[in-house]
Amino acid sequence: MSTETPLSLPIAFALLREKRPLVHNITNFVVMNWTANVLLALGASPVMAHAPEEVEDFAAMAQALVINIGTLDAAFIGAMEMAVKRARKKSVPWILDPVGAGATRYRTETARNLVVRKPTIIRGNAGEIMALAGKVKGASKGVDSLAASDAALDAAKRLSEKSGAIVVVTGATDYVVSPDRIETVEGGHAMSQQVTGTGCAVTAVIAAFMGVEPAFDAAVHGLTIMKRAAAKAATDASGPGTFATRLLDAIAVDHG
Amino acid sequence: MSTETPLSLPIAFALLREKRPLVHNITNFVVMNWTANVLLALGASPVMAHAPEEVEDFAAMAQALVINIGTLDAAFIGAMEMAVKRARKKSVPWILDPVGAGATRYRTETARNLVVRKPTIIRGNAGEIMALAGKVKGASKGVDSLAASDAALDAAKRLSEKSGAIVVVTGATDYVVSPDRIETVEGGHAMSQQVTGTGCAVTAVIAAFMGVEPAFDAAVHGLTIMKRAAAKAATDASGPGTFATRLLDAIAVDHG
Amino acid sequence: MSTETPLSLPIAFALLREKRPLVHNITNFVVMNWTANVLLALGASPVMAHAPEEVEDFAAMAQALVINIGTLDAAFIGAMEMAVKRARKKSVPWILDPVGAGATRYRTETARNLVVRKPTIIRGNAGEIMALAGKVKGASKGVDSLAASDAALDAAKRLSEKSGAIVVVTGATDYVVSPDRIETVEGGHAMSQQVTGTGCAVTAVIAAFMGVEPAFDAAVHGLTIMKRAAAKAATDASGPGTFATRLLDAIAVDHG
Repeated sequence: MSTETPLSLPIAFALLREKRPLVHNITNFVVMNWTANVLLALGASPVMAHAPEEVEDFAAMAQALVINIGTLDAAFIGAMEMAVKRARKKSVPWILDPVGAGATRYRTETARNLVVRKPTIIRGNAGEIMALAGKVKGASKGVDSLAASDAALDAAKRLSEKSGAIVVVTGATDYVVSPDRIETVEGGHAMSQQVTGTGCAVTAVIAAFMGVEPAFDAAVHGLTIMKRAAAKAATDASGPGTFATRLLDAIAVDHG
Repeated sequence: MSTETPLSLPIAFALLREKRPLVHNITNFVVMNWTANVLLALGASPVMAHAPEEVEDFAAMAQALVINIGTLDAAFIGAMEMAVKRARKKSVPWILDPVGAGATRYRTETARNLVVRKPTIIRGNAGEIMALAGKVKGASKGVDSLAASDAALDAAKRLSEKSGAIVVVTGATDYVVSPDRIETVEGGHAMSQQVTGTGCAVTAVIAAFMGVEPAFDAAVHGLTIMKRAAAKAATDASGPGTFATRLLDAIAVDHG
Repeated sequence: MSTETPLSLPIAFALLREKRPLVHNITNFVVMNWTANVLLALGASPVMAHAPEEVEDFAAMAQALVINIGTLDAAFIGAMEMAVKRARKKSVPWILDPVGAGATRYRTETARNLVVRKPTIIRGNAGEIMALAGKVKGASKGVDSLAASDAALDAAKRLSEKSGAIVVVTGATDYVVSPDRIETVEGGHAMSQQVTGTGCAVTAVIAAFMGVEPAFDAAVHGLTIMKRAAAKAATDASGPGTFATRLLDAIAVDHG
């Protein structure tokens, strides 16, 4: 699809709602419910599955695959590798969310081993992208980034050139980086940082758009939808609880 | 209890609130929190446990057992089989939720192996029930049904006759099917489809009613409560986030 | 820190918001999302991780460790033991939440084996604390307590003397018990019992305060914050769904 004229956001969104892309998620236990609800609100068809007996089947029938290492262990890593291999064989685009890369050696190495397997997109916060790009230390606190997204822009470029993946760095400003192009997405609301899994949700939403359009456009559209939804949700939220609830409502509206 | 006069919904509900039946759930990671909250809102006492070292103890002390294959793997299947065996020995009613049956061979075969173990009730969407009843293909997309519930009515009858279980097909119209009786439950709201685990929640609510009355009545009462709660929740919801929140509120009211 | 003048709640809270203590949780699947959101609302930095390859790293870098046996299995128990050992070596305070102790032999024995490993605090409901203190039977129904918190006060004293841990019993009245001191915390709202994981949330909040002050004070402050937040949330809740949402909002306000 990459040689065609890019779709506008309203058209891409209308296409998503019509096709209801199946998004296969091998993701962490913290955000499984939240991610499924975000994808349903958007209009996609989520499936969460991690058994080695079926991940290849789901990866092959999906329109996009999400690999998120938030609560990784050996069994999940094995399933991720199987799903990725099948997705690549079937030309199913996949997105890597390297949650906590840089925090422990186990996470950093697992994430790097997945980067080598050619994700279509890598989506992380500044600390995670910096950890994947080089030897930067101390940019993370647990799974939170201590650096702003623009501090990771050079790292994102290096990581994109090295891996061939489109690299998305999210934060106050979001960046979509490929070797020959950079786009920024502004907006959103700081309250997103008080809700777990808002980053993971962005990853899943981008995956859903990858089911209907080229990856770079999907990243920009997914980020735009989520920034808009966060800004809207914040207007009538009295705290992170109501914000999270309203965020699902705001994702579910017609973005045409 | 099957020869006694059926309880009315207000009486069954009052009995449930008084007895607070313990419902043991071996269920999927996506809906564990949601299911526990639904059961607490209803007035039941949920427990989630999957370790082989304790599932038999919980199954034996519970008033009902939920087996839900939403994120199955080999370890969970082993625990399910142990729990089911003990539940049957202790005459604890159990309900099977064959999430995604028909989507992958692994799910279909796992679900069929559980059907052979004599569930009291099987609750699924049209695609799942059709997959369990015969050789129908293409009725599912991931874990979502592509068919309406009435399209599965014949399949439900066959499945009930073959398995001896009461079969519940949920959708815009819900059906409760036994070899000699069919009941329908209308109502609800389409927004339920935008919240993950609403089907799983119905399964758990039916299980709670099985803790206080015969299974067929429990199915009708559980479905009725959830249809009413969904309709009520939709009246002041501005999207799937507020709908899910209000659904818990609506389940928690006095249904007497 | 135990010889210093105790911090007032406003100061302890301000310190927590400034330091954003990293709280490592090895907890149950039901409450992972909820616990992370509670800790983020409070102002702490949560991480959920259970892989043996990384739990020692997280336990060593954390300011507090939560061990919660809500959906335990052999793999999680192994990870818990590794994390606890490292936490103790690094003088990282840790809190044990013995969910369902007394319900099955497996839970009771697992919880007792963890008590021997010298938790800084043990936080449970009356049934759980009674099960850990002695041979009391029948004080639990699944993971719910059948006894009021004051019924467990003697058990809490015995458990504290035997284990050396501060023991927190939560219920309508909360108790913080050490061999030479008892404090009570009143308030809250009964609706907390209709939301799964409110007890687990209290445990995590106490852990966060342990990251900035001595454990006894942390327990009192954590309980106080949660009682206040529950009372506030109940004022504009129409049921357990809106209550849970408002509880996060109420935790997130400035408690100075």
